[in-house]
Amino acid sequence: MNMLNQELYGQYVARMRKIADVNYALAVLQWDEETYLPPAGATLRGQQMATLSEISHDLFVDKELGSLLLELNGRADLDSAQKKNVELTLEDYEKKKKYSSAFVRQLSEAASRAYHAWIDARKQNSFSVFEKPLEELVQLKRKEAQILGFTQHPYNALLNEFEKGATVSWLDGLFEDIRKPLKALLDKISGMNQVNDQFLHQNFNKDAQWKFGLEILRAIGFNFEAGRQDISEHPFTTSFNAKDVRVTTRIGENDFSSMTWSCIHEGGHALYEQGLPIEEYGLPSGEACSLGIHESQSRLWENSIGRSLSFLEFMLPILKKYFPQLESAQAETLFSAINKVQPSLIRTEADELTYHFHVMIRYELEKKLIEGSLPVKDIPAYWNQAYREYLGLQVPDDKQGCLQDIHWSHGSFGYFPTYSLGSFYASQFFAAIEKENPGLQNEIRMGNFAAVSLWLKTNVYRYGRLFTSAELCNKSTLEPLNLKYFLNYLEGKFNRVYVMN
Amino acid sequence: MNMLNQELYGQYVARMRKIADVNYALAVLQWDEETYLPPAGATLRGQQMATLSEISHDLFVDKELGSLLLELNGRADLDSAQKKNVELTLEDYEKKKKYSSAFVRQLSEAASRAYHAWIDARKQNSFSVFEKPLEELVQLKRKEAQILGFTQHPYNALLNEFEKGATVSWLDGLFEDIRKPLKALLDKISGMNQVNDQFLHQNFNKDAQWKFGLEILRAIGFNFEAGRQDISEHPFTTSFNAKDVRVTTRIGENDFSSMTWSCIHEGGHALYEQGLPIEEYGLPSGEACSLGIHESQSRLWENSIGRSLSFLEFMLPILKKYFPQLESAQAETLFSAINKVQPSLIRTEADELTYHFHVMIRYELEKKLIEGSLPVKDIPAYWNQAYREYLGLQVPDDKQGCLQDIHWSHGSFGYFPTYSLGSFYASQFFAAIEKENPGLQNEIRMGNFAAVSLWLKTNVYRYGRLFTSAELCNKSTLEPLNLKYFLNYLEGKFNRVYVMN
Repeated sequence: MNMLNQELYGQYVARMRKIADVNYALAVLQWDEETYLPPAGATLRGQQMATLSEISHDLFVDKELGSLLLELNGRADLDSAQKKNVELTLEDYEKKKKYSSAFVRQLSEAASRAYHAWIDARKQNSFSVFEKPLEELVQLKRKEAQILGFTQHPYNALLNEFEKGATVSWLDGLFEDIRKPLKALLDKISGMNQVNDQFLHQNFNKDAQWKFGLEILRAIGFNFEAGRQDISEHPFTTSFNAKDVRVTTRIGENDFSSMTWSCIHEGGHALYEQGLPIEEYGLPSGEACSLGIHESQSRLWENSIGRSLSFLEFMLPILKKYFPQLESAQAETLFSAINKVQPSLIRTEADELTYHFHVMIRYELEKKLIEGSLPVKDIPAYWNQAYREYLGLQVPDDKQGCLQDIHWSHGSFGYFPTYSLGSFYASQFFAAIEKENPGLQNEIRMGNFAAVSLWLKTNVYRYGRLFTSAELCNKSTLEPLNLKYFLNYLEGKFNRVYVMN
Repeated sequence: MNMLNQELYGQYVARMRKIADVNYALAVLQWDEETYLPPAGATLRGQQMATLSEISHDLFVDKELGSLLLELNGRADLDSAQKKNVELTLEDYEKKKKYSSAFVRQLSEAASRAYHAWIDARKQNSFSVFEKPLEELVQLKRKEAQILGFTQHPYNALLNEFEKGATVSWLDGLFEDIRKPLKALLDKISGMNQVNDQFLHQNFNKDAQWKFGLEILRAIGFNFEAGRQDISEHPFTTSFNAKDVRVTTRIGENDFSSMTWSCIHEGGHALYEQGLPIEEYGLPSGEACSLGIHESQSRLWENSIGRSLSFLEFMLPILKKYFPQLESAQAETLFSAINKVQPSLIRTEADELTYHFHVMIRYELEKKLIEGSLPVKDIPAYWNQAYREYLGLQVPDDKQGCLQDIHWSHGSFGYFPTYSLGSFYASQFFAAIEKENPGLQNEIRMGNFAAVSLWLKTNVYRYGRLFTSAELCNKSTLEPLNLKYFLNYLEGKFNRVYVMN
């Protein structure tokens, strides 16, 4: 690279880092909002976050950054990662330029109002408290789809923000392809003797759960020098840079398993963030690929590894150390218990099979909201009807129904489908890891995750978002997304749990 | 106010609020840095904070804000608070314009490096680890004094940032006036039988201390809906707006008193912040007057009230609830024990008398650092010599010597004298409150602080920083700062503790 381009690229990097600093400051404020913020602080916190959003946006759409990008774009003497960084940033620049600062602020403030209304609505167990702020947010998101532009369906514009390249027609196809096999598997299981998981629902000391969670996080490789865990209403992972990655959890006194696999889930997200190249801070090459790939990381650890018999054999002695009441538990019975299939109301507590019906319901609902064919006020009725149809369940109240998820309150529409994509990618990645490492199950049994970490580092972490999910999948598993891995995985697991061979 | 000015004033307010949003975001990052930040996150956190400092600075020195202020300044149809806001902001604007963004960033990054070096230096108990980053910071602060401009002494420029109107010659005079009476009182006490405070140094369960601290904070009026307490290495108060005020504390297992009066102290700061008018957010009328006045609030609660016999009579039953080992303690013996006078090494644990020698030592040292007559490397030697002279103490190591305070690591030079000013103002304010409320001691004995709160609200909180410390003192006590209140207060207290009449 000649001196001039090197200097120009340096200027580009400096600008991107400044924007990243603002975005990560915003993430700190959001983390604080969900962990420690005193209730009365909410109003001005919303305004403060809106101001940072606006500043970040203004820094991004700065014409000087635009000229710099145009000047750097396609320069032959940049290396391939640099070229890709410039190209992706230019794409982002063109996209962000479509938003006015006023719209960015409006969206941020509306999301903050909706978030606090959602908290209140849950307290009062009434969707109506959430309705108006959500309505406002849905209108803004519909406007956003128009601003961004789309082909075929406005929902595509929003999807693309989370999963580049994803479309309604592609997702419709994927969900169509799994709907029947999942339904068939569920029907088969419904005919079998149900698993007994009574022993999971004893009283488990909260402090012991907290410590156990930390030990499991440490075991899978979470670096506490570069991260921490706190408590929040809804578990999440956030990162302020690869050296400061925060996970949260929640602890219920009568169920250690919810906390445990939530920790492993968020831990998987966190390992991805801690594994991103810190020297690429602020650049596409330093950011996660997509939400679908992010979710593949959490699910690979939570499900493919964490809910496997091998992992449970590793975990059981540790578990018994914290919970003497489990002294007589066996890995096999624990395996069956935590993999029990049963249609249920709460997505985050669903088994790996019925989980995807929860996603399909939300996906269908969001499409309708965004295309304008479902009014916000009809959400509870639609929701409850869908749960009857898909899962045969009666929804007793909004808290266990359409108020259960935080996403809409953040203005995140198009997010849910990435959960299913995450499961699909996770199975395919894990199959590739196992193929390369025939002794993997034994290693997991000994708590040795080095081969998994190495594969993920080599095939996922180090690329940041230089490749799309589809490209990454092709590159690392040598084929496009293929649902057979996911379906094979589920059949293998549930055949074992329900002894159906 | 005519329409045009109203609109202009509104534009000014909107700009100030945006700057406040950035500053308070910065404060959240700083709070997090001292409470929850994982160690490896420090480097990029420093950069993130520097970026926000730079953005805040750039927003403030924006020429459009300058023109707006010039246009609004002196307009006859603004009300008096509005006029004052504009006038004070214009003053700040002229001052901030003297700094380049690059210098602001340099200062912020140097302070971040110094802060983490200070942490390490304390771990290794060696000033030399802190020396270079501190040297860099001192050079920047000397440069800052030049940038700001000053008459007589460069330290005046830095003092003025914390205490508008304070000068070296004024402070020299004040310290001269108290040095002899304090020395005389100390000598007198040294000749008396020492107080027995053995019972303070038992083992006090940390969790019980934490809960006791929260109860005392609540008792003096801290609003937990609009604030919270956390743990940090060095207790502090920070505010992100009047509805989100955070205090921190630290807990030592063998001393409940350090935690207790630290809580009350920070609580006093916090009550001031929670009492500032929220509708003036972002404007001078919504900010604290000065560090000296801020400190007067913490010391009024900690010392004038918290360390009084009346308060201890109120507190004792609560204390016994948490610490059964104090079952037989009497208010009088507790009063003597927590007011015991004894020269000691650590400022924050010093009694109210010898405390001011700690301040004088730091004040003299800082003046020399800033005028360039004391090289940074000579700080430990100077420090140790001064402790011999002023307090007759041998400093055993740097941690108990010149590494004990966080202030320099933040680049805060000129801060320490405001601690003494705080004590002086606190005594004078409290004397005024007592004069207006003859039954005050009885009310305090019953845990009723309404009269105190009302006086502070009426005379201090509601004015923000529309008046200087000197003006506020005059306005609320009808005379300028008068050291007799402080000296009378100390003599009264210690005559009682040491029965010297």
